[in-house]
Amino acid sequence: MCPPPDQPVTSNGDEEMVPIINDGPHISSSTNGQVKKINENVSEQPPAVKSHKGLYGRASDFLSNTSNWSIIESTLREGEQFANAFFTLETKIKIAKMLDEFGVEYIELTSPAASPESKAHCEAICKLGLKKTKILTHIRCHMDDARLAVETGVDGVDVVIGTSSFLREHSHGKDMTWITKTAIEVIEFVKSKGIEIRFSSEDSFRSELVDLLSIYRTVDKIHVNRVGVADTVGCADPRQVYDLVRTLRGVVSCDIECHFHNDTGCSIANAYAALEAGATHIDTSILGIGERNGITPLGGLIARMMVADPDYVKSKYKLSMLRELENVVAEAVEISVPFNNYITGFCAFTHKAGIHAKAILANPSTYEILNPADFGMTRYVSIGHRLTGWNAVKSRVEQLNLNLTDDQVKDATAKIKELADVRTQSMEDVDMILRIYHTGIQTGDLKVGQSHVLDRLLEKHMPSREGSPNGSANGNKRARIEGASA
Amino acid sequence: MCPPPDQPVTSNGDEEMVPIINDGPHISSSTNGQVKKINENVSEQPPAVKSHKGLYGRASDFLSNTSNWSIIESTLREGEQFANAFFTLETKIKIAKMLDEFGVEYIELTSPAASPESKAHCEAICKLGLKKTKILTHIRCHMDDARLAVETGVDGVDVVIGTSSFLREHSHGKDMTWITKTAIEVIEFVKSKGIEIRFSSEDSFRSELVDLLSIYRTVDKIHVNRVGVADTVGCADPRQVYDLVRTLRGVVSCDIECHFHNDTGCSIANAYAALEAGATHIDTSILGIGERNGITPLGGLIARMMVADPDYVKSKYKLSMLRELENVVAEAVEISVPFNNYITGFCAFTHKAGIHAKAILANPSTYEILNPADFGMTRYVSIGHRLTGWNAVKSRVEQLNLNLTDDQVKDATAKIKELADVRTQSMEDVDMILRIYHTGIQTGDLKVGQSHVLDRLLEKHMPSREGSPNGSANGNKRARIEGASA
Repeated sequence: MCPPPDQPVTSNGDEEMVPIINDGPHISSSTNGQVKKINENVSEQPPAVKSHKGLYGRASDFLSNTSNWSIIESTLREGEQFANAFFTLETKIKIAKMLDEFGVEYIELTSPAASPESKAHCEAICKLGLKKTKILTHIRCHMDDARLAVETGVDGVDVVIGTSSFLREHSHGKDMTWITKTAIEVIEFVKSKGIEIRFSSEDSFRSELVDLLSIYRTVDKIHVNRVGVADTVGCADPRQVYDLVRTLRGVVSCDIECHFHNDTGCSIANAYAALEAGATHIDTSILGIGERNGITPLGGLIARMMVADPDYVKSKYKLSMLRELENVVAEAVEISVPFNNYITGFCAFTHKAGIHAKAILANPSTYEILNPADFGMTRYVSIGHRLTGWNAVKSRVEQLNLNLTDDQVKDATAKIKELADVRTQSMEDVDMILRIYHTGIQTGDLKVGQSHVLDRLLEKHMPSREGSPNGSANGNKRARIEGASA
Repeated sequence: MCPPPDQPVTSNGDEEMVPIINDGPHISSSTNGQVKKINENVSEQPPAVKSHKGLYGRASDFLSNTSNWSIIESTLREGEQFANAFFTLETKIKIAKMLDEFGVEYIELTSPAASPESKAHCEAICKLGLKKTKILTHIRCHMDDARLAVETGVDGVDVVIGTSSFLREHSHGKDMTWITKTAIEVIEFVKSKGIEIRFSSEDSFRSELVDLLSIYRTVDKIHVNRVGVADTVGCADPRQVYDLVRTLRGVVSCDIECHFHNDTGCSIANAYAALEAGATHIDTSILGIGERNGITPLGGLIARMMVADPDYVKSKYKLSMLRELENVVAEAVEISVPFNNYITGFCAFTHKAGIHAKAILANPSTYEILNPADFGMTRYVSIGHRLTGWNAVKSRVEQLNLNLTDDQVKDATAKIKELADVRTQSMEDVDMILRIYHTGIQTGDLKVGQSHVLDRLLEKHMPSREGSPNGSANGNKRARIEGASA
């Protein structure tokens, strides 16, 4: 369970609980469309959850690497297999430099065997002199590819071969004996050049368990740096992943890298389950771009891991760059960032229902597991709609320095809901309604419950509403619902 | 593990394995941009996986409901809390009727207490006389809301209240004793009207386990129809979900409904884990729209469940309607279907890497866990790019009825890769290159390996390439990479 973080911290060794300091966000007076913008600093809202190991931590969590893992960022390899991708060298260099600054541990590049340009790009990126990020290239399990790879200047080579009977039959046509023999040859050759090597099966979750464990044990014995598990078709679920990685963790002593496709929506959860079971490296791409609908997205993995250990994630990666990284890639491959993207989607921190808005204003952690400020993002509370609530409206009344009682705020809210029932109200509209309501109360022209009086005041003081295209429709529809129960 | 489905079926009681009939797809001769379209019927490609319980089935799978579950479709409730959502009655009726035809078991509507229009919409939808789908409305745990709800004509009421200390403190301010007392009152009232009732906690994964189990046991004893578990903030991971639902399954005898937000990318995997642990109902919305970045998407859940039991899913839902449902909702809330959407995203069935294209042409199940034909979708194999392979090109050569040896196809592929290294080639370009290559071979003007001769032939017979804006750049860049190793 996610721990209830507002419990008092005790000194009885419960080190995984942190206190919540309930200092609600500062509310600015700026308006922005139909929403309220709330400014805040990172320091104002401590993370709601320090670790997933709360009151109900699991007995097997000793395997977990959710506070000790690395990213192998494959936008420039898996991402290049995305339908729309055609990266120029200039774009590749820009992305590589940004990923280095963001702080990923590795980037993976398309095989130099794929095409002459791919080889040239690989060599050029190796010459950039990235500060933190190591450079890998991804090749088939074949000596020709390996020879090309080690000449490019990469820090390591990721080797892959299909081990499922599907791929053995329909792709390369080789048996496990051939695969094992070739794997050993390639690994020993690459290691002899003094660079890292990973050996991965492909379509691991449709391969024979015994075949898999057997070849992993073999390559571990000759000191491969990492073994890789890949859900190439996107069929695996988190419990399968946990079981396979946990088993593998008991068989090999090297690192374990995992690669998850997202065809059935589990790529992030599978990555998390793999880390819980002892995996060490997760493959990502920016926005998840890759074959078909792609793999574990960088931003989505970050969102997930922030729940497990925000301090660890924040110490490793420059999270404020996430949005820019996604924008650069989205532009390069001519896609839009999905409306519901993790962290950076336009509505990721927008709160709408009245019950949510009220609680968010009291304490953002009530309906947020992530703090938008950690990513240079901003929280929005939407109030000009039919699901709004009087607490959110009251907060706006206070921002406008209007003097209304709770009963008066509730009365004004009823009118906002009535109007929003016909058409969502902009922030300007909401402000105007509140000011007119306030003036009516101050002058004595309006009392609580006098809905028709308020209608006349609004018609008198908001004439532009009727003149606008929406205004007219609004006026008509408003008449239609008059008398409906509030 | 996903079972290796090409194993022979034995008669030793292994009922969960199905044979794969390796009848590859029919390849049409139509061209469509830079991709090859492959037509096929549902019957041509049997599902690659019948059940997730394969060779390595889990001992605890007796709890699993992955072949026995229902959808509570909440586009018209949770979806209305999406930032952009403002559904007119007309739109709501259209969506409700389509969901009925699609076959969801329930739809959930916004509370009639939310606004007068919400109440009117609820009543109107109840009067539609939907064929299969039952209608629910979603209310706070409060008698006022319950009285309004039962008057609308709904088949059932979904009651929710915050049980985390977060929400108890910052939202409704009530303690567990009050919550329990009110829950009993509301449940008994709704049941007395002869309609279904569900009782759900909110923010279940940050609530005290003992509080949760206690109130669930209480409401189960008074014969609530379902209890609900909700990850309201999107913090839960699949193993937490499995543990909580499994525990709850041992405490209550009623149905268990689950509601998962997607802030950290686990909403689909959590739904799956919940069903594995014995849950019976999953909340979805079309495209996942809801508060913040939303909840389990209908299409994503379908994709996931198709891996577990395709026959069950296909028997219940009219899957060919999925794309139209998504298009209607996307238009209504003014968003684009994400590029990487499950099943219906533009690239969900596009195969690009040469190694993938080759295997897909031999047997689609090699790199597909879902059959696009089940959803009225089409598979694409992209070949005019730098990662292409000669097997995919050979398949195109055969479609064009050209007579080339494998060596000649490989030679032509090298040229396509070289050109695609500079700019992705359209299908028309690829066809033209292959035809010119073929003519060169036939006339004796060209032999395998004569790259410069082929360049001259292409320049002579594809003059329009140089005249086009891309053509010129292409020519320049082609010169630049001349001499690079192939």
